[in-house]
Amino acid sequence: MTTERATVGVGMVGHAFMGRAHSQAWRSVGPFFDPPLTPVMAVLAGRSADRAGAAARELGWASVETDWKELLRRDDVQLIDICTPGDSHAEIAVAALEAGKHVLCEKPLANTVAEAEAMVAAADRARARGVRSMVGFNYRRVPALTLARRMVADGRIGALRHVRAQYLQDWLTDPQAPLVWRLQKDRAGSGALGDIGAHIIDAAQFVTGQSLVGVSALTETFVRERPLAGGGTGPVTVDDAALFIGRTSGGALASFEATRFATGRKNSLRIELNGSSGSLAFDLESLNELWFHDEADAPGTAGFRRILVTEAEHPYAGAWWPPGHILGYEHTFTHQFADLLDAIAAGTDPSPSFAEGLQVQRVLEAVGRSAEGDGGWTAVQTNSEGSA
Amino acid sequence: MTTERATVGVGMVGHAFMGRAHSQAWRSVGPFFDPPLTPVMAVLAGRSADRAGAAARELGWASVETDWKELLRRDDVQLIDICTPGDSHAEIAVAALEAGKHVLCEKPLANTVAEAEAMVAAADRARARGVRSMVGFNYRRVPALTLARRMVADGRIGALRHVRAQYLQDWLTDPQAPLVWRLQKDRAGSGALGDIGAHIIDAAQFVTGQSLVGVSALTETFVRERPLAGGGTGPVTVDDAALFIGRTSGGALASFEATRFATGRKNSLRIELNGSSGSLAFDLESLNELWFHDEADAPGTAGFRRILVTEAEHPYAGAWWPPGHILGYEHTFTHQFADLLDAIAAGTDPSPSFAEGLQVQRVLEAVGRSAEGDGGWTAVQTNSEGSA
Amino acid sequence: MTTERATVGVGMVGHAFMGRAHSQAWRSVGPFFDPPLTPVMAVLAGRSADRAGAAARELGWASVETDWKELLRRDDVQLIDICTPGDSHAEIAVAALEAGKHVLCEKPLANTVAEAEAMVAAADRARARGVRSMVGFNYRRVPALTLARRMVADGRIGALRHVRAQYLQDWLTDPQAPLVWRLQKDRAGSGALGDIGAHIIDAAQFVTGQSLVGVSALTETFVRERPLAGGGTGPVTVDDAALFIGRTSGGALASFEATRFATGRKNSLRIELNGSSGSLAFDLESLNELWFHDEADAPGTAGFRRILVTEAEHPYAGAWWPPGHILGYEHTFTHQFADLLDAIAAGTDPSPSFAEGLQVQRVLEAVGRSAEGDGGWTAVQTNSEGSA
Amino acid sequence: MTTERATVGVGMVGHAFMGRAHSQAWRSVGPFFDPPLTPVMAVLAGRSADRAGAAARELGWASVETDWKELLRRDDVQLIDICTPGDSHAEIAVAALEAGKHVLCEKPLANTVAEAEAMVAAADRARARGVRSMVGFNYRRVPALTLARRMVADGRIGALRHVRAQYLQDWLTDPQAPLVWRLQKDRAGSGALGDIGAHIIDAAQFVTGQSLVGVSALTETFVRERPLAGGGTGPVTVDDAALFIGRTSGGALASFEATRFATGRKNSLRIELNGSSGSLAFDLESLNELWFHDEADAPGTAGFRRILVTEAEHPYAGAWWPPGHILGYEHTFTHQFADLLDAIAAGTDPSPSFAEGLQVQRVLEAVGRSAEGDGGWTAVQTNSEGSA
Repeated sequence: MTTERATVGVGMVGHAFMGRAHSQAWRSVGPFFDPPLTPVMAVLAGRSADRAGAAARELGWASVETDWKELLRRDDVQLIDICTPGDSHAEIAVAALEAGKHVLCEKPLANTVAEAEAMVAAADRARARGVRSMVGFNYRRVPALTLARRMVADGRIGALRHVRAQYLQDWLTDPQAPLVWRLQKDRAGSGALGDIGAHIIDAAQFVTGQSLVGVSALTETFVRERPLAGGGTGPVTVDDAALFIGRTSGGALASFEATRFATGRKNSLRIELNGSSGSLAFDLESLNELWFHDEADAPGTAGFRRILVTEAEHPYAGAWWPPGHILGYEHTFTHQFADLLDAIAAGTDPSPSFAEGLQVQRVLEAVGRSAEGDGGWTAVQTNSEGSA
Repeated sequence: MTTERATVGVGMVGHAFMGRAHSQAWRSVGPFFDPPLTPVMAVLAGRSADRAGAAARELGWASVETDWKELLRRDDVQLIDICTPGDSHAEIAVAALEAGKHVLCEKPLANTVAEAEAMVAAADRARARGVRSMVGFNYRRVPALTLARRMVADGRIGALRHVRAQYLQDWLTDPQAPLVWRLQKDRAGSGALGDIGAHIIDAAQFVTGQSLVGVSALTETFVRERPLAGGGTGPVTVDDAALFIGRTSGGALASFEATRFATGRKNSLRIELNGSSGSLAFDLESLNELWFHDEADAPGTAGFRRILVTEAEHPYAGAWWPPGHILGYEHTFTHQFADLLDAIAAGTDPSPSFAEGLQVQRVLEAVGRSAEGDGGWTAVQTNSEGSA
Repeated sequence: MTTERATVGVGMVGHAFMGRAHSQAWRSVGPFFDPPLTPVMAVLAGRSADRAGAAARELGWASVETDWKELLRRDDVQLIDICTPGDSHAEIAVAALEAGKHVLCEKPLANTVAEAEAMVAAADRARARGVRSMVGFNYRRVPALTLARRMVADGRIGALRHVRAQYLQDWLTDPQAPLVWRLQKDRAGSGALGDIGAHIIDAAQFVTGQSLVGVSALTETFVRERPLAGGGTGPVTVDDAALFIGRTSGGALASFEATRFATGRKNSLRIELNGSSGSLAFDLESLNELWFHDEADAPGTAGFRRILVTEAEHPYAGAWWPPGHILGYEHTFTHQFADLLDAIAAGTDPSPSFAEGLQVQRVLEAVGRSAEGDGGWTAVQTNSEGSA
Repeated sequence: MTTERATVGVGMVGHAFMGRAHSQAWRSVGPFFDPPLTPVMAVLAGRSADRAGAAARELGWASVETDWKELLRRDDVQLIDICTPGDSHAEIAVAALEAGKHVLCEKPLANTVAEAEAMVAAADRARARGVRSMVGFNYRRVPALTLARRMVADGRIGALRHVRAQYLQDWLTDPQAPLVWRLQKDRAGSGALGDIGAHIIDAAQFVTGQSLVGVSALTETFVRERPLAGGGTGPVTVDDAALFIGRTSGGALASFEATRFATGRKNSLRIELNGSSGSLAFDLESLNELWFHDEADAPGTAGFRRILVTEAEHPYAGAWWPPGHILGYEHTFTHQFADLLDAIAAGTDPSPSFAEGLQVQRVLEAVGRSAEGDGGWTAVQTNSEGSA
């Protein structure tokens, strides 16, 4: 018989979209990844007792707190999973780390560089005491993107020349879509830039193993007034779309675009890389596919090949189903928790670290400054912690 | 506050590939579909206490039995989920129904028409006592195929002219692949025909709303001797591939192909329909996409459109994530259980019924007879129960 | 300076769709392929002097005859290009060959096996006198299909297991489409079978290097009465669609479908091959692409690759434009004439020969016999001339 | 009988890649487009009598001149077709227009804005005398792009939000590729920017009906030394790749990228447009396809549809073959000449005019200035002639 596995009690803060996705992943990581620590879905925190209670029942959490600070005091919680909007990340994460709890914090790490810097400092202090922290850029763990990263690192595309990254959605196309908090700068920080732009910045830096060193940017708000829930209209104070071009630490040219006005594109996160000896292409709407051109192929039979990333050889895929059986969006969260549990058990630092999250924040900040100016070249502040 | 939901205790027999898929679905159906009956993963049955115990821990079942007959005696079990190979389906299902347990039986319903007929008779007797039965053709609940069925029923493609169905895999391409039980006629009944051919027969009949009335068939075994686990070689006694053409009850022409020798195709279940006013096309390797040509479109701007079947309007998809977020293979089992729980609660018959499973068996039988003869026209026996 | 090239005077019979395509190819072969014989567009034959004269002016022919027999008497004509419907092929071709003229005859070679046999006999006699003959299966010279044939011959896909060929059009979907001669058996011989089915039979046999040895077939006429030009309706006496399955000389399984009722498919000639070590896929609607799966690729990075068949290494493509510049439908005829002129100059036999055309006719005949019977296995008559 | 058509004698200057493409188009325009003026391939000009003579024979020109100025004196020439490199365009075009000859000038109109301005002035003076001029942006006449332009003009995508244009080639990926004149600034003006960047600027402005008003740009030379033909190496003095973002006259955001380092992309000119009520996407490697998302489609069955632009309803396509028969690269030149001959006969101005060519030049110039500076916002000079 196997000995009983050690457990890690999880306290999740927030129970909206991300809370649902995380719950499914906490539920699934055990059966499929056989982690060295068994997660226990101990407690869910939400401000409304009624709504949090209903969510806990639906999502499978054993208890409820209405104040997230209570989670830090509970002995049955060793890991805080932060699923709240970005403006509360810093406060919760810093407090949790100080309290000796491991932290998984949803992306973006924070709404400002200053908050992110404070979080990195707290993570550094906590690390010294064996407390782990991770930021939730889940798309790194789409098997096709993890494979892409591995192939780039293995030299399969040679010296990087071009990065082309887009995150195209269309949920604001309708000018009558209401003025939700995501469209208000004081709540959301920025618009498409911080929400989905952050994903492609992180994904592109992850896959290439290079960081952006500077950018030229444009942003736009196409629909400047939108209906308010209570009647009347109010101003949209964030960007609807952000475009920028830049250079990477290895000398490649990069082009980025994040928009909520790409009519007909629902969730199209696209990344293309061209290197001196190969190319890769990916689209999140075809999550299980990675396209690869190998310049080493004989000229007469070369071409972009569609790798269906569901083989036992592929990252994460072997834990699930036989070849050709499609994986979905929420699997990425399960992979994230599998790696986090491995790291906690092994006493190593999971990735992406808070420092990596800070570096993304600095790119976002450079984009914002360039766009507010005349679009001229704006260097990305160096991350002295040396992330990415 | 909501009142406590009624529960249904589930006893699952078998814990291999299908057992894992079903377990994940039983775990997921509650959080995402809010079923009127809450499933309780009560007991898993497996012949080896050790292996069943390990599986129960891994997959989340509360207890274990080594004899499936014990499940029929337990008061905490109201539903038997049969995940064993086809040769045991009839015995378990008939006994479970006699014992008053609802039954979900994996496909194919049985290995022979005679067994399937006995199961249908048992299902009919049980139905009279309010006991429900369902056969697990999970691909009916791929959202894209459910949508296709709805569109056909709504007349979106008009009068059906052509069905083109293929199930292409490649795991037997290597002649050194071992002689597993699936390649032995006495265990598996048939080869590609019953295993994956059954899926496309059911899927095509489901989507079109028509049944196959007759077929002309060819089968082939490309590699006739394979290595035995214990050394030496043995004969492959089932088909490696099966092709047949036929006619549907509505006068369409149909072409089917099931093979394990389609090098490079991992799990490519493809269905194309051409009707008098539109066409549909699907490939399981792109599970979230349905292609639709609408003959009513203006000629200058008509074309096959790629419907990304992840919208709130689409079958099942709204229960999961926002538009554009990809669903995977195992979601189909969750959908199956959601519908089964709804039917049990409502006192209605879930679909596909055992009678529908029998009808698929009859098509398989006609294909086998045609292929063993000279490939001439062979009528599919009529299902007097009138399913499909 | 180069010496003046020898010329070959061409007399074309017929000036409809095929006549236009051939004219463009005769015009283009010189500038792009630098053939050893320069073709001279000497004379066009058509029954109506007015219409033939207008066509000659439009298409660039130097003179006109209203009786094709006159072409055989003219000293300025060395090659007869037959672009008439199939029922006149035998008479013209046999007479031309007897008169010592080289012959290019459009496909299908004839409307019956008997006619085709007489043509092969005439071709054999002519060959002894250095007179060449060729049948116009132009799709063999789509660069992607020529490349596919070369790859199969080079062993790139290993032992052939599966052929999947479809020719899907939709121009008869509308039940009000008129009863043209192509829908009358006495004129056209057969419907979709002989018209487009012949193309996929030839293309599949060409690419695989194997011939069909037997078939089981179904045909159908979906719309049995259609409007006549002069008012009223008349019966459709040919097939709207033909399906058959069969075996090749090398033991592969084959599936064929030809239909004019595939709504939304305009000219979709699709061929897929699965072999023991690779697969190929092609669709004429994407004429410049060949998809190739190489089983020798490392498992983690294997996948179907899209070869854009426009490189200098590719068949015919180097004669046209730089890589990535798309070729079109009519280029296939130019390639055909380039090879024909090479063969005439070299004193060798061009391919496909009349014997190869006869073998396709025998497959069509076997399909017809099987479909008229009960769809049972029907052997394809052996071509004693040993073609294909 | 028809009366004899009037003719227009063509004198072509240059006989390299573009000369071959134009010759094929002059040869093809008559048979397929029945133009009101019949072009006569009168004379080809090239500096070397030998090479020009060989080219004339190969390409079908009736005579040869070694000094292009002779063409202006010949009475049998009414139209000058300029196929030389960009540095000679201005001199030839201005002289030809002064001599009363119609002019078709290959793109880019010139190597500098000043030259282009002089050409526009000459075109204006000539127009007053009924002499026509046109610049050869042939991709406007890819049927799919002409259709896209028509759909945008018809309001099918609503208010334009995004333009995404890329021209991706890979012929410089190999660092050992020689230092040809195209990589020398004094000869070529710029690198990828002027060569292929000009195409996407024109195509995007044409399709959207809007012009670029300002840009932020980056350029890069990845391989700075290349082998010289005579041995040794020399410096590459032009860009290998150019990226820029900008805004259009209608307020859309635009992203452009032109590169010769996109490994595996042979000739991938891609344009995507997102509008308030629809989207369009195109890739020149799939020249016959236009992808269209119509926001007016019912949500449950909406999706990007693949329009195969080969129908009689589509621009130019009806002149060629039946639906589904693929057109190629060189057809675009035939379309260009068909429209030019129509305009000359009708006494109207063909498009794109020299003024439109000048406007593209001004965009290129703004991109160059931005990239040489810090990448900041650079306004595109207004074209006082009011083109585009």
